[in-house]
Amino acid sequence: MTRACIFCEIAQGKAPKALVYEDDHCLAFMDIHPLGDGHVLVIPVEHAVQITDLAPETSEHLFNVAQRILRGQRRLGLGLNGTHILLNDGEAANQTVPHAHIHVIPRKKGDSLRSASRLLLHVTGLFGARAKRTTLEQQAKALRYELDGRTPD
Amino acid sequence: MTRACIFCEIAQGKAPKALVYEDDHCLAFMDIHPLGDGHVLVIPVEHAVQITDLAPETSEHLFNVAQRILRGQRRLGLGLNGTHILLNDGEAANQTVPHAHIHVIPRKKGDSLRSASRLLLHVTGLFGARAKRTTLEQQAKALRYELDGRTPD
Repeated sequence: MTRACIFCEIAQGKAPKALVYEDDHCLAFMDIHPLGDGHVLVIPVEHAVQITDLAPETSEHLFNVAQRILRGQRRLGLGLNGTHILLNDGEAANQTVPHAHIHVIPRKKGDSLRSASRLLLHVTGLFGARAKRTTLEQQAKALRYELDGRTPD
Repeated sequence: MTRACIFCEIAQGKAPKALVYEDDHCLAFMDIHPLGDGHVLVIPVEHAVQITDLAPETSEHLFNVAQRILRGQRRLGLGLNGTHILLNDGEAANQTVPHAHIHVIPRKKGDSLRSASRLLLHVTGLFGARAKRTTLEQQAKALRYELDGRTPD
């Protein structure tokens, strides 16, 4: 772990997260500054800045999990009409946290301009508005159960 | 094939392309409206609008090829400091061609504002400037040989 890496802290349970999925190599959780309703981040457990710092099988696994999440979101009605899967890999691509992460961002019809502006803020290194923790926890729970093929309590 | 689908035409050799990679399930070629130098598109051979219209193993394969291309670009010095892997999946995510495609977009230090603006144009449905066919052919050839582990003539 790199000192003060927020994603390492999240992976190690030292910082809070609304968990969507985890296994030995990766975890997925709700983005606290969502660019769309249900925005999820997928990260490797191992600290790596860029995707090319990971073994190819690990980075492939991250993208496979991202696609499972996209499919799970759609079964829940999120991003039915559109979803971005986005990797900003490296400083020149405006990677904002130096621990590799893949965005899975559901979109809605008619949010184009708002989200485009927010995406612009994002690629220029700024953020979306901070979401309520309770909202993120509810979304994470629904997605977690969906990926497990179970029904929430 | 959907009538007048430009990516089906490209896949079937009925429209020109600067080919980077192909196999039975996917092909990769230079984007004719690059958002960064060396911008590649990865598409399924089979016509499918959204990633969820494909078998999971096919969409996983597309992302695996996208990552191989990112790694190949970096060995060639493209996107050393940053690369986007971007899927705009569905109309609400401003998918501009209704045949699934993954962008692999190398970035350069200092191009932030320019590219951010062009990315904004892209997510709002507009395009980058059209590139010269000869430039695309040269980049495609270098990448093709790089992915094959061979040296260009």
